[in-house]
Amino acid sequence: MREMSIEKKVLVLREGEAAEETVDKLVLEAPFTIFLNGSELVTLLCTPEKMDRLALGFLKSEGLLQSPEQVESLRVREEEGIAEVELKDRSPLAERIYGKRAITSGCGKGTVFYHALDSLRSNPVRSKTTVSAQQIREHMQRFQELATVYKATGGTHSAALADLEQVLFFCEDIGRHNAVDKIVGECLLAGISLEDKILLTSGRLSSEILLKAAKLQLPVVVSRAAPTSLCVELAEKLQITLIGFARGRRMNIYACPERIKPEG
Amino acid sequence: MREMSIEKKVLVLREGEAAEETVDKLVLEAPFTIFLNGSELVTLLCTPEKMDRLALGFLKSEGLLQSPEQVESLRVREEEGIAEVELKDRSPLAERIYGKRAITSGCGKGTVFYHALDSLRSNPVRSKTTVSAQQIREHMQRFQELATVYKATGGTHSAALADLEQVLFFCEDIGRHNAVDKIVGECLLAGISLEDKILLTSGRLSSEILLKAAKLQLPVVVSRAAPTSLCVELAEKLQITLIGFARGRRMNIYACPERIKPEG
Repeated sequence: MREMSIEKKVLVLREGEAAEETVDKLVLEAPFTIFLNGSELVTLLCTPEKMDRLALGFLKSEGLLQSPEQVESLRVREEEGIAEVELKDRSPLAERIYGKRAITSGCGKGTVFYHALDSLRSNPVRSKTTVSAQQIREHMQRFQELATVYKATGGTHSAALADLEQVLFFCEDIGRHNAVDKIVGECLLAGISLEDKILLTSGRLSSEILLKAAKLQLPVVVSRAAPTSLCVELAEKLQITLIGFARGRRMNIYACPERIKPEG
Repeated sequence: MREMSIEKKVLVLREGEAAEETVDKLVLEAPFTIFLNGSELVTLLCTPEKMDRLALGFLKSEGLLQSPEQVESLRVREEEGIAEVELKDRSPLAERIYGKRAITSGCGKGTVFYHALDSLRSNPVRSKTTVSAQQIREHMQRFQELATVYKATGGTHSAALADLEQVLFFCEDIGRHNAVDKIVGECLLAGISLEDKILLTSGRLSSEILLKAAKLQLPVVVSRAAPTSLCVELAEKLQITLIGFARGRRMNIYACPERIKPEG
């Protein structure tokens, strides 16, 4: 695994004390350019780890890839920060990439997003799976234990996939979108059924994160942080169980509580 | 001012207690589409407040606008979530918008970003302004006091501009990029000199936030949160004083400490 942080001299000031020079760990941020069928698609700024997962997860979340069977080849040149993805079927791609002109940074999305949104509105998650509140609490405790880069740098978001017993995949990244996309990529590669799985995230629950889960038909999304109004609205429409402020003994259920067994 | 949160029923679960239904406040997330010279440029997902600032700040941060004098007209249709911006000089625009094809969400940037980066590398901040550590501590205390939507919802990021005496502008938004862009817009409209001003943010210090400050030639950037490796690297190159983990009595200076007077 590639190193995810570097050491850096820093000047620490404390009120009423002399300045103290010490060494701090900084999370790595690096550009990562994805080439799709030979043309440059995007440059993400990310923490350079699990870049194959990030490339596949990004393509899935952006609607450019449905299943790993569509991938002809995936080559990651880690040191250069480049991924080259070749898909078997190239036909519908140009139009989609053209549509991406309206997509931007700053947690923004363009027209493509709203098409996706409309199609998803008619695609609610049907899973009948249920999980106990106690299991969610244990998952979130484990989730925090696994966040070693965060503990060292304070600069990462985390995302994970859990089943009803344990955390299966865990990722960290400077970006909350990237962290979730790495998990999306893990799910694609694992090829496991997701109808009884749970997405854990350290980040705020915005509409974009909810839509990433919806594209995987994940029935339960959990975060330590707050949800937005649009995220809750979408979770109700898409029948995804949405849990926020999952901290210690407490959690808030914002949508579809029927999948959570209060105690047991 | 438009309401920035809505009330929503939520089910609160606490270990060993019965589920309790209560009312929670959720920060508003809404799509906001910016039309530039009649064509759709981008749809941001934001908290619908100070949308004129957000539109101008976004255009500035993306390199599509340098000064307010270039703006022929700006019309925000709040309820529809639309801004229509007309620039006087339209000539260089098409090429730039075309270049935006590679820009994406998830804290990502495309080729355009790296051109901007290169040009900025040769454009360090020359300001000789200095500020006391005590003043930074007072700014950050005031900054937290002003974050009323965060206190109510837990779902916003904050950004502010301060001079050597007080906090001048303050904004909240679901997105840390949006919050800073709203401040960028305030700066454009205010038309004040920025060579002795300080940018405050609640969010992580990534390369994109640093570049927004660099485009305004702001000499000092402060956050409660952690910086990334690339952000510190850019701050050194661009000679921007970078302060992270500014909490209570403590702060970490990662670049250009000469602008900070340790005590006094």
